[in-house]
Formats: sequence, C-alpha cells, structure tokens
Amino acid sequence: MLSDRYLSDDVRALHLSRDLYEVMKAKPILSPHGHIDPKLILENKPFANPVELLITPDHYITRMLYSQGISYESLGIVKKDGSATKPDPKGVWQIFADNWHLFRGTPSRIWIQEILYTLFEIDEVITPARADALYEIIDGKLKTPSFLPQALFNRFNIEVLATTDATSDDLSVHKKIADLALTGRVIPTFRPDDISDPLRADFQGALTQLAKVTDIEISSFASLLQALGKQRAHFKAMGSTATDHGVFSAQTLAVSDAQKEQLFKAVVGGATDEATVGAYRAMMLLEHARMSADDGLVMQLHPGSLRNYDKKFFTEYGTDIGFDIPVSMTFARELQPLLNEVGHSKNFRMVLYTLDESTYSRELAPIAGAYPSVRLGAPWWFLDSINGMQRWRDAVTETTGYYNTVGFIDDTRGFCSVPVRHDVARRFDAGYLAREVGRHRISKYEALELASDLSYNLSKDFFNL
Amino acid sequence: MLSDRYLSDDVRALHLSRDLYEVMKAKPILSPHGHIDPKLILENKPFANPVELLITPDHYITRMLYSQGISYESLGIVKKDGSATKPDPKGVWQIFADNWHLFRGTPSRIWIQEILYTLFEIDEVITPARADALYEIIDGKLKTPSFLPQALFNRFNIEVLATTDATSDDLSVHKKIADLALTGRVIPTFRPDDISDPLRADFQGALTQLAKVTDIEISSFASLLQALGKQRAHFKAMGSTATDHGVFSAQTLAVSDAQKEQLFKAVVGGATDEATVGAYRAMMLLEHARMSADDGLVMQLHPGSLRNYDKKFFTEYGTDIGFDIPVSMTFARELQPLLNEVGHSKNFRMVLYTLDESTYSRELAPIAGAYPSVRLGAPWWFLDSINGMQRWRDAVTETTGYYNTVGFIDDTRGFCSVPVRHDVARRFDAGYLAREVGRHRISKYEALELASDLSYNLSKDFFNL
Amino acid sequence: MLSDRYLSDDVRALHLSRDLYEVMKAKPILSPHGHIDPKLILENKPFANPVELLITPDHYITRMLYSQGISYESLGIVKKDGSATKPDPKGVWQIFADNWHLFRGTPSRIWIQEILYTLFEIDEVITPARADALYEIIDGKLKTPSFLPQALFNRFNIEVLATTDATSDDLSVHKKIADLALTGRVIPTFRPDDISDPLRADFQGALTQLAKVTDIEISSFASLLQALGKQRAHFKAMGSTATDHGVFSAQTLAVSDAQKEQLFKAVVGGATDEATVGAYRAMMLLEHARMSADDGLVMQLHPGSLRNYDKKFFTEYGTDIGFDIPVSMTFARELQPLLNEVGHSKNFRMVLYTLDESTYSRELAPIAGAYPSVRLGAPWWFLDSINGMQRWRDAVTETTGYYNTVGFIDDTRGFCSVPVRHDVARRFDAGYLAREVGRHRISKYEALELASDLSYNLSKDFFNL
Repeated sequence: MLSDRYLSDDVRALHLSRDLYEVMKAKPILSPHGHIDPKLILENKPFANPVELLITPDHYITRMLYSQGISYESLGIVKKDGSATKPDPKGVWQIFADNWHLFRGTPSRIWIQEILYTLFEIDEVITPARADALYEIIDGKLKTPSFLPQALFNRFNIEVLATTDATSDDLSVHKKIADLALTGRVIPTFRPDDISDPLRADFQGALTQLAKVTDIEISSFASLLQALGKQRAHFKAMGSTATDHGVFSAQTLAVSDAQKEQLFKAVVGGATDEATVGAYRAMMLLEHARMSADDGLVMQLHPGSLRNYDKKFFTEYGTDIGFDIPVSMTFARELQPLLNEVGHSKNFRMVLYTLDESTYSRELAPIAGAYPSVRLGAPWWFLDSINGMQRWRDAVTETTGYYNTVGFIDDTRGFCSVPVRHDVARRFDAGYLAREVGRHRISKYEALELASDLSYNLSKDFFNL
Repeated sequence: MLSDRYLSDDVRALHLSRDLYEVMKAKPILSPHGHIDPKLILENKPFANPVELLITPDHYITRMLYSQGISYESLGIVKKDGSATKPDPKGVWQIFADNWHLFRGTPSRIWIQEILYTLFEIDEVITPARADALYEIIDGKLKTPSFLPQALFNRFNIEVLATTDATSDDLSVHKKIADLALTGRVIPTFRPDDISDPLRADFQGALTQLAKVTDIEISSFASLLQALGKQRAHFKAMGSTATDHGVFSAQTLAVSDAQKEQLFKAVVGGATDEATVGAYRAMMLLEHARMSADDGLVMQLHPGSLRNYDKKFFTEYGTDIGFDIPVSMTFARELQPLLNEVGHSKNFRMVLYTLDESTYSRELAPIAGAYPSVRLGAPWWFLDSINGMQRWRDAVTETTGYYNTVGFIDDTRGFCSVPVRHDVARRFDAGYLAREVGRHRISKYEALELASDLSYNLSKDFFNL
Repeated sequence: MLSDRYLSDDVRALHLSRDLYEVMKAKPILSPHGHIDPKLILENKPFANPVELLITPDHYITRMLYSQGISYESLGIVKKDGSATKPDPKGVWQIFADNWHLFRGTPSRIWIQEILYTLFEIDEVITPARADALYEIIDGKLKTPSFLPQALFNRFNIEVLATTDATSDDLSVHKKIADLALTGRVIPTFRPDDISDPLRADFQGALTQLAKVTDIEISSFASLLQALGKQRAHFKAMGSTATDHGVFSAQTLAVSDAQKEQLFKAVVGGATDEATVGAYRAMMLLEHARMSADDGLVMQLHPGSLRNYDKKFFTEYGTDIGFDIPVSMTFARELQPLLNEVGHSKNFRMVLYTLDESTYSRELAPIAGAYPSVRLGAPWWFLDSINGMQRWRDAVTETTGYYNTVGFIDDTRGFCSVPVRHDVARRFDAGYLAREVGRHRISKYEALELASDLSYNLSKDFFNL
C-alpha cells in the first residue's frame, strides 16, 4: 500500500511499523539544523514557479543534472556576479522531467515525489510527457494563499525551525518573525565560520563587521572573544540554542593565552602558512567549545568537506553549488584536547556529524558512548537517505545506544522539503524499530517509547528546544 | 528453484526479479574491461584439461589453496624462470576438490559451480569423492569442437570483449582476430603502466620499445607524448575505445612543460627518490587524462593495490599471483588537479574503480554525481561478489544515481568465467531492482528500463561500444 | 518464539536455523581469548551481589551510564588509589534499572537479559519498577552453592577457558586450578605488552620483574629475548597455546641484531622520542612473531585503540575503564616486514583483530586469504555484536572464506557473560548460514558442516586447543 511507503519491506514488521509511525506522525516537527532563509518566511512572497521552488535552489538536483552534461546556464542558475541567463521556466522544468530517471534511487527523487504527492496531490512519477501538465498544477497552486510561506509553515506543523545565521547578523529578520504569531518558532543558529578560518576571503571583513555590530574594537584575541560572547548572548536572547561549525578538520588545540594572542596577531597580519592557519583554526575550535561550556549553546560540528572543490564552478557560481567533496576523516585524536578540557563539563553539549561513514563505529559511537556532553547527529548531507540512515543506525546503535543520538536533522535549503524529509526519516525509523522488535532486540513497549524519543524527545531535550 | 538462484531471497521480490532477469539475459555481453589473452582466441587450441581451464590461471583459486598450506608447486604453477613441477593434473584436481570447502561463501565457488552447471551440465557441488568423475566429464567435453575458444566465444553471446594490451603492442593478434568473422568484436585496451612508473623494472625497456614500435626517438617528454599519441591512434584504429591505468595512488599533478621535461630527465637518468618518482607518476597520470580528453579514449583508473606484496612469491612466481594487497585510499584531493583541468571537457571520460569501500559514499559517489566526465566502475577484484555488489549499490546509488555508473566489468583472466560472471551480476541486479520496487523507491516500469540500462546501455554508451 | 531469538528474522530460514543451532549448542565452549581473573575460579568465593556481578566490573555498562551523566562515584567504582564511595548496592542497581533504556539496541542489553533468563530464570525486561524484586532474586541465587564460580564453570560446559596473564606471572594460580578437577581446562595467555612499549609507566619495572622471575640478567636485547623465551616455555608448560598483543599500531620492522641492541639501550636509557620508541615497538612486534614461529604459540594481534583517552578518568580510575577510543587503522604496509619474514613459516600462526571495519575487506581478508599463517579473529570489543558480526561475515567471507577465520572470541571480564556471548554468536551464525543456504550460496549439508566448524573446530584446530 502506498500509505506504507518507506516503512518496511518486511511483511512481518509492517503492522507494528504502522503503529510506530502513527506515534511519530503525531509529533510536531523539531528542525534544529537547517538552512531556510528566514526572509522567505518574513516576506511571505509566493514562490515564483515550480522551478524556483524545486530546482534552482537545490544543489542536489542541479549537480546531478550537470553530472550528465546539463549546464547550470541552461537551468538559469545565477552566477556569482549576479548574471544569469533567463531561460523559460517551463523549458527548465521540461529538462528536469526529461532527466528525472537520473534521480532513481536517490533521496532527491523521494523528497520531490513526496512534495508533489503530499503538498500538490500529484500521485504519479514525473515523466517527460507529463512535464507540462505537472508544471501547470504546481504553478497554479503556488499562486493560491494557502501556498504562501507562512501558511505552509503553519500547515507543516513545525514547532521549531532553526535557521543558520552569520556571526554578525543583527537578527532583525528573526525579531520581526517573532511578532508574526506563527504556530511555531523560528530561531537563529550562530555560525561563526567566517571569523574562524583565516584562509576565507571574508576573514578580515568578518572581524571588522563583528567589531561594528558589537561595538567592540577587536584588537586582540581577548577582544575577539569578548565580541563573540556579546554576539552569542544576542543570539541567545533571540531564541538561539545552538551554534554550528563547518570546519575542514576536527582538530582542536589547547594553547596558552599568550600563544592565542600570537596566533591571532599572525593571521590578522596575513599569515597563510599551514602551521599557523592550522593552529589558529584548531585553537579557535576549542575556544568555541569553551564558550559553549560557558553559555550552554549546543555546539554542532560537521567537518570533512573539501569546499569549493572545482575552481571553475567556484569562480563562476561561488559557494554551495554542489561542488563540495567529502574527504577521509578522523575524530579521536583531533577532539582529544577539546574533550579532555570540556568533555565532562555539566554545561557543555556537542553534536557530531560526519561525511565519512568509516568513523561511525570506529570513533564517533565510542566517543558518544562515553562522554556525557556528546551526541551523534543524524546522517548528514550525502548520507541523509534511507540506506544512509540504515547504515548509521546499524553501525552506531550497538555501541552508543539510541539515547546518545539526536533526532533527524533536515539540513535543507528547500522549505517544502522540511516536512517530507522528517516524514521519510520517521517512516524509516518506524520500520527500523519494528524490525528490531522482530529480532527480539527490544520489546514492543520499548519500540513505542523509542518512537516518541527518536521523532521528538531526543532533539527537544538535547537542543534545549 | 535453482533457476532463481542469486535473484533474491525475498519471496515478494522474486516474481519481478524473474521478469527483470529475462530482460537482462536477452542482452549480449559487453565486456569493456578484462584480461583474456587474445592469443587464446586467435589460436583456438583446445584447453588442455580441467586444471589448466579452471585452476592454474586463476589466482583467486590458487591463493585460497595456498592460504591453507597447499603449495603453488604442488599445483604445478609455472615459476618466473619458466620452471615448474609437472604434477599429474588429476592429482591437482583432487587437491582442489578435497579443499573445495575453503571456497564456501566466495564468488569463486559460485563462478566455478556456474561454469560446471551452465557449460558442462554438471549439477552437483564438487566433493572429494566425485573429483575423478567430474574431471572426466569436463576433460571429455574440452576435447570436442564445441569447446574450442572460438566456438565458446560465439556461444557466450559476446558483443564486445576488450583485452588488456601493453603500451607497445603491435596488435597483430587483434588484427588477425578481426578477420575471423566471430559473432562479436575483440578489441584492445591501451595500458601504459610500464612507461608511467619509473620504479618498474621494465621502465627503461618500455621506453625503448615504444620508441621502436612508433619509430619516434624518445629523447624528451614531448617526444614521449608524441610516441604515446601515435600508439593511442594505432589502438583506436584497431577498435580500442579505452585505456587502463593500474596505479598505486590516484595522485595527479599539474606542472609546466619545463618541469615535465625536468622530471622526465630525472627519472630516465635513474632518479628513484620518492619525491621525484611521485611527481613523475602524478604528472604522467594527468597527462594520460589530457590525451583522453583529446582523443576520446575512455580512461579507466584503478588505484590502491600494493603489488607484489610478498618478496618470496614475487621472486619465485612474479607478478599477478595472488599477493597484491589493497591499501587505504583517498581520491578527492588526489584527483582535484585532474578534474579541475579536464573534468568539464566535453570529450573526456573517466571510470573510477576502488578496492577501499570506505571511498564509495565518501568520495567516489560525490565526485561522479557532479562531474559529467566521471562514472563509477563496478566493484572490482576482491569486491565483484554478491555482497560486494550489494554494498556498492547501497552506498553509491543514493548520491550518484544509477546513471553515473557503468555496467558490470568481469575483469577476468578465465575465459569461461566471462559469461557466468555477467550472469551472476545480472541476477543480483534483477533482485536488487525488484526489491527497490517493493521499497517504493522506483516503479516497475522504471525497473524494467533500468534492467536494460544496467546490463547493456550504460556500458554501451559510456565506453563507446 | 523466544527460543528462536537471534536466529533469524527471515521466516524461510528459521527452520534450518534451528537445526544448525542445535548442532552448535551441543558443542562445548572454547574460549581462547578472554579476561576472566583466574583467581575468581580458584578462590571460588560467592559473588557479593548483583552489582558486583553485573555492573561494576563491566566498563561497557559503566561507560554508557556515564555517557548520560551518571558518575562513576555513584556506582561505587574503585579509584586507582583504592578509594571508593560505598554506595548501597541496591541503590546502584536501581540507578542501573532506571537507565536500562540506554542499552536498547546494544549487545550489553542482550547479554545481561540472557544472563538473567538463562542463569537466573528471569524472563522479563528490566524496568525501574521491578529493580528491587529482580535484585532479590539474583542476590538470593548468588548465595547458593550452585552459583559459586567452580559450579558455574562446570555448568557452562567450558572445554577451554584462556585467561590473560602478565609477562612475569608465575602462573601459580593456574597450577592450583589444574588440580581442581574441573570439567574443562583454564589456560594462561602470554601478554608481554609491558616490556614491549617503552612509554608505559611500568616498562622498566616489567624488565626488572622479568629478570627476577626468569633468573636471567637482562642487560642486552639478546638477554631479554632469552628471558622471554624462558617465560614463554613456562607458559607453554602450563597449557598456554597463545600470546596476545595489544599494540597501538601494527607496524613491524626488521633490523639487524646490532640495531636491536642499540634500540634496546636507547629505550632502557630513557629515550622517549617518537622515532626511537616507534622503532623499538615495531622491531619488538616482529621479534614476538619470530618467537611464535619458533615455539608455536599462536600470536594474537589487536591494534588500534587509543588507550586512556581521557586524562581525568585515567588519573582517577586508571586503565580499562571505558575511555579507550579506536582510531583509523591500516595493516598492509605495517605487517609487510613480519609477513615477508615469517608469513610462510610452517610453525607460525597469527590471528588478526581490528576496531576499524574499513580494514575488513580492504586489507584483512586479502591478507588472510593468501598467507597460511594468518586467520581473522572474530569481531572484537565494540564490534562483537549481532550487527557487527553480520558486517564482518559479509565483508570478509567472500575474500577469505570461512576457513581463514577462527571461532567466536568472548573477550570478556564478566564470567557469567561467557556462555551467553558464545550462545548469541552461535545463534547469529546459525541464522547467517541458514540464509546463505536460502541464497543458494552453500548447500544444506555444507551449512551443517560449517555449524560445527564455526562453533568448535576452527578454534580447536588453529589455537591448538
């Protein structure tokens, strides 16, 4: 039955899967990690058309099309310099439909078909022949008030939606959203990547901006910390409960205050050698942890992606356009300085994500299964798929249990994909738990309790939502 | 039912598996990567006996027997110096049958039993007691005309069989095969490993031979490239559509023409230090890619094996005798220079293989899911097994889809294993796709289309067959 | 049915699973690798209470409780200096029961519930409400003669139980146990870690002690080898068949006798630099292999854990308290010197364990599938779980077969967990083999033979038990 989709392909587990899914489905959505632009919600403008809703902003979609030779230009992707061809959206949609077979077996396919089914009541697989008709159905609905972002937000049954916000954001958008009387909260997440990596083009500018927004002159590392502390307090005041750190390596480093100042001076002075830059990054990461141990913002760490891998695409289209490639990762030695310092701290909380699945059972589960401050984040980016979730639960649960993980993270830039991603994850978990009951590994009663915990309580509690 | 073997152990998927397998079974075999000696086909001599057909040339078999203490000597393996004991083949066959239990759970067992069943009509598991009788049945058939290589070739329904050929091969054997009017083509593959690795014993000799066969004096790197270009053109003229690169590391390096000449001079002059050799190899690998972007030969890259691991076996028996051991691999940083230079080139095509499964979801699928020039090769060497294929499809499909892969690669030295390897892979894929339909991840219609694509179209198209 | 637990969740495999499990269940237990204190058996004192039986000595349990903020102090764990709070055991048991949900999905949960069921006839999931009642039942039985260690030993149907013993142990405890007329043997295992790692705090003391116990002055590396040889002979005389090496890296190194003496002098003289220490460790590891090739003690190698990861816990509680974290591992290059020297030696036997699952198909299976001296040890430590065993068999069997592995290793410090760990592993294997029959990969007859081999013969033969 279609209503049983993604629950379980094991007939004996199906009945219980349904019961567990009912429990999960009733829970509101907690989305403590994602990349929805808060302005989308505040401004409440209708989505322009199916292409701008589903294709252009989704680099999972655009990279796959490009992988078979379809240029970003032909899709109308805007370049770094703001320029773009203006292809007819119906033409782009047709290209998309003509190539829908490329997505077979991918989560993108599931999410898009789920959006079509649950939101637009389209119960068919996208095909070239039906492209035009589907475009019209979607486009028509997008023009109705019930498809405006705020209406959708309420309909999605979102309790909390966390956005990702720059170090020096004044959060004025969030302030205005708070006044909207939505049925759920939209909260910011503090992401200080720009001031943490001296090799970023915007590093110096980010320091200047932080100084400006906090009204603190950043002439030393101590004053940088002071400014960061002030801005973190501002984020907390606006509802934030977490920070987010997209670093290349998980390396941390404990150094003296004098050494911190020295490193700060060096990188502000323009040092770009690997040793200095590496030490600054590692020292800074531990500093963020110390601040979290101090103010209680949950630290999210997701290392391991070689960003802007392709020179040509980076030059033409900029960041986050599908050309970030994961690399081999290790965590144990890298996090040792951090964990030895704040790992037992009552106030410290950290969520670890990875793109290298070999770290699941080797390092991440053993660490989260010992340190009270550490929880494992759900599979992330290329891994937040049904097989990906299966491998993750299989690999980490036996060492770290369910209770040293947090709930599903949608990590999305596509607003309409928020509810379907959570729904697919819940369906998967329902099937997973049902099978565990069949395997005599948990009782039915425990599975029911876990259904609530995985879909709601774990994130609620650990992220302080 | 025996006819359902390897399709699926899921009863609900079985019916559809059968339908999908029927589609696949009807397709001729495309074998774009393998190691059959073309002379075997040209000379069309009968196979001497069951041992020379199935045991001696197959290092999967001999290494497993040795792993339990059975010496290569007792199996009659020929040494590097040409010497060999001459054990009675019936005795060797008995040793093999006595130890058949060692292969339980391995693909070798499946392939050999499939050869016995489909080719020799032997429907029983090999046992010590039946060794002699089975030997006689096989040996008897081998002496009949229908078991001559050319008769088998036609019977196997092979459309294209690619061999692997040395840099300076004159391809006279292929020329003669082309005149045989077989029902399929036998095409060469250009494998310039000898001139690419300065540490190979035959490096200098290979340069000399290339100079001779192309009639180009190789006194500079520029002239080496010229000679390689000429030989590649010769391969293309003889039907070749691909090159093959068995390197230790995937490292590539972009350097100036002057630096290329410098490196070339150094290694021809005998430099063996790691820095120079590493730079030469990495620079050469990028050069092969540039030539592929130029002439359109599909570049196959399979790095990651520590060749000739065992000194004693290398000294006594030489290369390719079962003592190559995979090592930890990474691809992302290594291939960045290559991909940044030719990754978007319209004419460039590359197939990536790995022996390190941790690279599947971490690096390979993300790269192939973005670059139009890159496809993932099927699981290779130790991994071309049923569980191996399962892990591979599970790990890569969600990120790269089916259409950024190529079809099954048999990679075999055993002629009779060509059809059974493809058949087992097709059976596995039929079951895999049927299960995906049951999981609501593709429709039945899509599964039928995929059945054709995985078994035929993907390789046909990407390898230009 | 409860009696079918952990056999298979595949209905079609269930019937055969039961038959295979019957074969396995009838076999006595061979435990060639574990950490039961032999004094526990010799002294034959009753277990104090449920907490000292099941919680305090089991760092799988204590680390999980700590991972959710329950202090070791509140559990009454004894500190390094011998001090401990003395919490009421009933209170500790209540904490344990209150947090039993943390263990859902972990092997600890399975083992503890199995102990309760099979040993204490408690057929219910532990809950907070039932904590007290369960405590009384267990505690009551512990006070009866049939729950004394020697009675349990006989009841467990153990044929051989290997303990782990320090380099200089005089084995007097084992000598006395030998006189007890138990129904099975308790044998020592030689574990010379202390004299193998110059950075261990007890390194110099260990040398002194070895000199004392062997009455050989250790003034040179040659005399150290002589002393080790004498002590190994002593272990062999007391029934030992194996050594055990818990090293950080698998690196081995072949050096001249003169270099050995030089390295020995350096580390005895206090050298702690990485190069010297690394060379000493690597050279020593190869030396242990040479001694094994000489005296036939089976060498067990389990590298890859970053021991005493947490400074605070190491300072307060010492070693083996749940804060050892695995790291990324490789084997191929590291073992090459060792395998090239003794890998073909008739008398040499080595069992390899890993904590890094990416090494299964990449290096370990290819090595064990070629070298007659090498077998793969069962999944170890964090990996000796049902999913862990599934991944292991799936990843290694296709390359190395079943016969280049050894049987299950319980590796436990908890005496009552010995039989249940073996039982769960046998149940898993029964289901695994039954499914393989259903997949047409082995015949029913072969599965029955494998049932005996995996549960008994493989360990019996390779460990010389």
